[in-house]
Order: sequence, then C-alpha cells, then structure tokens
Amino acid sequence: MNSSANHDTGISPFRDEQVRARERARKREAILLTAVCMFNKHGFSRTSLDDVAAELGVTKPVVYNYLGNKDRVLLECLRIGLEQLVAAAEDVLSIRGTGADRLRSYLLRYAEITMSEFGRCVIRTGDDLLSPASRVEFRRMKRLVDNKLRELISAAAADESLRVCNIRTTSFAIAGALNWPAQWYRETGPETKRQIAEQIVDLLFSGLERSSTEKSG
Amino acid sequence: MNSSANHDTGISPFRDEQVRARERARKREAILLTAVCMFNKHGFSRTSLDDVAAELGVTKPVVYNYLGNKDRVLLECLRIGLEQLVAAAEDVLSIRGTGADRLRSYLLRYAEITMSEFGRCVIRTGDDLLSPASRVEFRRMKRLVDNKLRELISAAAADESLRVCNIRTTSFAIAGALNWPAQWYRETGPETKRQIAEQIVDLLFSGLERSSTEKSG
Repeated sequence: MNSSANHDTGISPFRDEQVRARERARKREAILLTAVCMFNKHGFSRTSLDDVAAELGVTKPVVYNYLGNKDRVLLECLRIGLEQLVAAAEDVLSIRGTGADRLRSYLLRYAEITMSEFGRCVIRTGDDLLSPASRVEFRRMKRLVDNKLRELISAAAADESLRVCNIRTTSFAIAGALNWPAQWYRETGPETKRQIAEQIVDLLFSGLERSSTEKSG
Repeated sequence: MNSSANHDTGISPFRDEQVRARERARKREAILLTAVCMFNKHGFSRTSLDDVAAELGVTKPVVYNYLGNKDRVLLECLRIGLEQLVAAAEDVLSIRGTGADRLRSYLLRYAEITMSEFGRCVIRTGDDLLSPASRVEFRRMKRLVDNKLRELISAAAADESLRVCNIRTTSFAIAGALNWPAQWYRETGPETKRQIAEQIVDLLFSGLERSSTEKSG
C-alpha cells in the first residue's frame, strides 16, 4: 500500500527505476516474440527490422535501440530457445526414476519446445544466416544442448534402463526425429504439440517392430 | 569394328552427333557434381557460378550455356537427389518379403543417399533459396518421395509386419531421424555411411526400450 503510494506519487526515484527496467524488459520481449514469429513465418532473409518495427507500430531505430541489428535480434531469439531446452534438461534431473524415465520426460518437453516459436527458430536457422561472431555463439549454445541430451542417454545406458548401442548415433537419431516437426508443425493441424511429441517418443522407445509375443499372437 | 572405323574416320555424321551428345551430357554431369559439392561445402548463398566455373577451369558463360542460372543449377542438383530416392523406393518393390523387410531396405538406401552429395543437397536446401517457380517444382518432387515413404509404411501396417500407430507422424519421425546425418556426416568420420544407416534403422525398428525378456534377464 505504502510502496504503491510512493510509486503513484513518484516519491522514490529507485522505484521509478525498477518500473522503467521492467517496462524496458517487457518491450524487449515483445520485440523478440514478434521478430521470431516473423522469422519463422516468412524466413529470416525475407524479414527486415523495418517489417518487425511496423508490426509493433514503432520505427526501426526503436528496435535497434532495444536489441541492435538484425543479427543480434536473431541471436537473442536463438538464445531464448536454447535456454528453454537447457532448462528442460535440468528440470528432469529432479525426477525420481530410471535414466529411461528422465530421458522420456526430457524428450517430450524437447519436442514441445521445438514446435514453439523460439525453439522452432533454433531448429530452422542455418548457421550461415548469422554473422561469424554470432555463429560461434550459436554453435557454443547448441553444443550445450547436445551435451545435455548425450548425458541423459549415457545415464540411461549406464543404469541399463535403455538399450543404447552407440551414444553419438542414438543422440543424432533422436534429435533428428524430434527436430523434424519444427519444419512442418502448424498450430491449426489436427494434433496438439503434446500428441505429436508422444507419438514420436513412443516410436523411439518401443520401435516399429512387433514384439515376439505380438508376432506369435 | 565397322562402326568404330566410321567413327575414327568421321564418316557418319549421325555417329558424331551421338558422341557430341554423350560428351555434352558428361560435361553437364561434371558441372552438377562440382556445383553440388560446393553448395554442400560452402552453402548455396556463398557459392557463385563463377566459383563453380573456376573450379572446373571454365568461365561462367560455359556453365550458363549447359544449365542456365544458379537457380537452375540448384534445381537440377535437387532433381538428381530426389530421383535417386524415388528409384530406391521403386527398387524395393521387387524384394520378396514383408512390408517391414521392404521398408527396412528402403530406409538403409535412403540414409545412404542422403549422406551422399546430391541427396544431402536435397535435405539441406531450404525452400526459400529457390525462385518461386523452382520452389513449386522442388516441393512437387519432395511430395513424391514423401508419398513413397508413406506407401511403404502403409504396406507394412497393412500386412501387420510393423506396429504403426499413425502413418503421418511415423513417416515424419522416420524421415527426421534419417535426414539428420545429412547435416553432420563427414566422409572422414569414424563410421561408414552404411554403419550409420544401420544404427539408425535398428533404433527405429527395435526401439530404445529393453524387451521384457531382457528386463527380466
């Protein structure tokens, strides 16, 4: 009550600073969300910062002031997507259960993220769209995500909850199967993100082959 | 003997025409192979027809004369890769066995093609690099390949040699898992194309989960 009164009457200059910082962060997020949606929809090369600014009802210098040039805007979008993936990998470490249980939870979350705007941008952005400096940073962040996946696969191999013949190939195959929906998933399609994620993870876990019981049955 | 004598002495003008056509086809192939290797290595945007011509020791007008502009060159590279995939799908129809056997054979071949130069170009080329007319053609050809894969999956579902819950998602997951090596496979790596193809196909067929016999064992 007191602090809100301070804010309303503008008594505390510190309070103003906090409000401004929050406001600035909110605007920055709005720019990034608009930009990532336009990159995903029209392609990075075909989207200019003028287009992004126009969509938000501001001018290009405003976007520039918050984030820098188009390369910076893209890198920030990629950072958000990759941070979501790293956070998901860290979240599953708190799950009680086998390595297989943890991997399954992570893969479901991974698939959902990569069908969402920031995650989709991570999957669909070729390294060659970035400036050399941003490319180095993008690759560094992608390696973190690759390593998390390999750690989870290794743990499931170590506790023998999964059958893993080659960790590197397995991680590539899993990532490939799960990354593909980022290329074609549409919110307007017949299935939800979760349903598609579950179908792919079930396929990876159970395989296409019928079990010997099913075959003899 | 007679015809070769004709050729050597240049008696038959028809023979000359055939030789010239063959020679022309061979040069066209050499241009396409050089171009596709450079597109894969350096990226399409960063490769000019001048670069391709220089690599072959000719000038850009020579390349242009054989194939047209860079967009045409790319489209022809993509056509070769996609035709290899369609041919592989048609080949497996002659295999005696179940739908599962045919699908497995096709997937092994599919993975090997997409780790090779023309197939890799198919996987790594985003639609947005092509002119609108070429993009329509590229998508049309890709749909043919998608349909072949779905047909093979449907056949394996129909004869109950595989357990398929959703044909569309299954085909996307399979294609995703198999397309990924096109992004990272290097001839100099520790494994051959065939080994990687087998590891991924085994994973897709058997799944990561241990069977109940293995679990109890």
